[in-house]
Amino acid sequence: MTSTKHIAIVCPGGPLTRELAQKTAQIAAARFGDSVSLHFHEQCFSVAGHFAGTDAERSAAFLEVANDPKYDAVWFGRGGYGACRLDDDLFGKLNEDARAKTYFGYSDNGFLLARLYKKKIGRQVHGPIATDLNREGGEEAIARALSYLVHGDASGLEPTVKTGKPCAAFNITVLAHLAGTSWAPDLTGHVVMLEDVGEYLYRTDRAMFSIMSDRNILGAAGIMLGRLSDVPENDRPFGSSEEEIIQYWCARAGVPYLGRADIGHDAQNKIVPFGVTASA
Amino acid sequence: MTSTKHIAIVCPGGPLTRELAQKTAQIAAARFGDSVSLHFHEQCFSVAGHFAGTDAERSAAFLEVANDPKYDAVWFGRGGYGACRLDDDLFGKLNEDARAKTYFGYSDNGFLLARLYKKKIGRQVHGPIATDLNREGGEEAIARALSYLVHGDASGLEPTVKTGKPCAAFNITVLAHLAGTSWAPDLTGHVVMLEDVGEYLYRTDRAMFSIMSDRNILGAAGIMLGRLSDVPENDRPFGSSEEEIIQYWCARAGVPYLGRADIGHDAQNKIVPFGVTASA
Repeated sequence: MTSTKHIAIVCPGGPLTRELAQKTAQIAAARFGDSVSLHFHEQCFSVAGHFAGTDAERSAAFLEVANDPKYDAVWFGRGGYGACRLDDDLFGKLNEDARAKTYFGYSDNGFLLARLYKKKIGRQVHGPIATDLNREGGEEAIARALSYLVHGDASGLEPTVKTGKPCAAFNITVLAHLAGTSWAPDLTGHVVMLEDVGEYLYRTDRAMFSIMSDRNILGAAGIMLGRLSDVPENDRPFGSSEEEIIQYWCARAGVPYLGRADIGHDAQNKIVPFGVTASA
Repeated sequence: MTSTKHIAIVCPGGPLTRELAQKTAQIAAARFGDSVSLHFHEQCFSVAGHFAGTDAERSAAFLEVANDPKYDAVWFGRGGYGACRLDDDLFGKLNEDARAKTYFGYSDNGFLLARLYKKKIGRQVHGPIATDLNREGGEEAIARALSYLVHGDASGLEPTVKTGKPCAAFNITVLAHLAGTSWAPDLTGHVVMLEDVGEYLYRTDRAMFSIMSDRNILGAAGIMLGRLSDVPENDRPFGSSEEEIIQYWCARAGVPYLGRADIGHDAQNKIVPFGVTASA
């Protein structure tokens, strides 16, 4: 007899297509059989302007699946933008079942992972989401996420996680917007891994000003740089490399730069549980 | 006999061309004659990657003109990006002459205006800069800035400034990056006017999350929205207007929304001295 992991999917930012949900379910069935059951909440397919339904709809769907003892994990279906618009109220309504769950995703979902981590509600994990299927090699990314969620498979973990140091991973633009807000967790002692996509280097540099000025990060064990992908060409070269940018701001803030991390907006994006990964 | 106002121009972000400096000087001479003398610091024409010279060069040039009793005002030549990279050290080296000066500019220079305002060094003013000459109607924008700096002409002031309420004005993206950092001034009791250029509405919305989560702004008298120009079309409509975005985040933070302000990344950009404008 197989024990089945029940995973609920909601979208705190942008919506999913039914086609993508179906494809994700097919991959899950083909690779993991009865050991997993995916539940795509109807909210994933709702559309309200930029978002997967109104703030109220997205908040209600997240609260519903987080509080439901039937589910072992909440997997975010898509990033985009919108997680920081969820109702402030909902966080006070999360119950004991919500505290027992894993919350898995990245990109814009980092807003939500941050706030849950700050409030110590459940286990937050940075890793691939359903819309990564649209990337080359996306099926492997999805399989990596599911293998971790279903079997606790550690082979998809970012290598530094396995050292047992407390870790966290964020999109640079998202973390820059979190900086200084009441959603931002204290990252003292953490290895903080950063990645981004589609941003001019001057914008990444400006985001690093915010990040490295935040008292939540000044006590970090260090910063690691994941991949910056699809960086647009500016009208003039920035004048220093992406790694030099991170090194510059680390030096300015007196926080160690610890080298490259294996995360990014791509199918190779590795898994980073927040905090200490004990079994690693 | 005319008393001459001496105005030093430096570029904390991107560089100027000599051609633009010459054109600015010609306009100043034609319109204001002997009542103004513009000094373009050589640093304006320096180029180091994205910036008008290295951080050290830009910092030294700003410190030099700020501390020089010869100048009545420091006028920023250009925005772009780079003011937040100025040396932290320089702010402790600003002397009594620096404290007697007016600092005039906007856009990326808002980083510097913010920090000077926080440290109560001199008088900070949001208003047109030399590169606005490249805009349609730019000559009038430059003349408005100079008329204020040379004659204290109040006709170019944003109307709310004239009510005598403490005011401040910022680019939305810049203020979002300032939020939560040690550069951000306390804006309690202020009417805070916001503007931006070239940002998707979802980015403006995300920036407002940061701004309206900053404790420095939660006690503001209210927020006014200037112009958002050159907003790119996204792959799907955002679903609410620019004014609804500001109203949404004001309501969430419990800060009054006070309507439109006459500022923006355009030649009509009006002048907003920070704090109370006593003579208004």
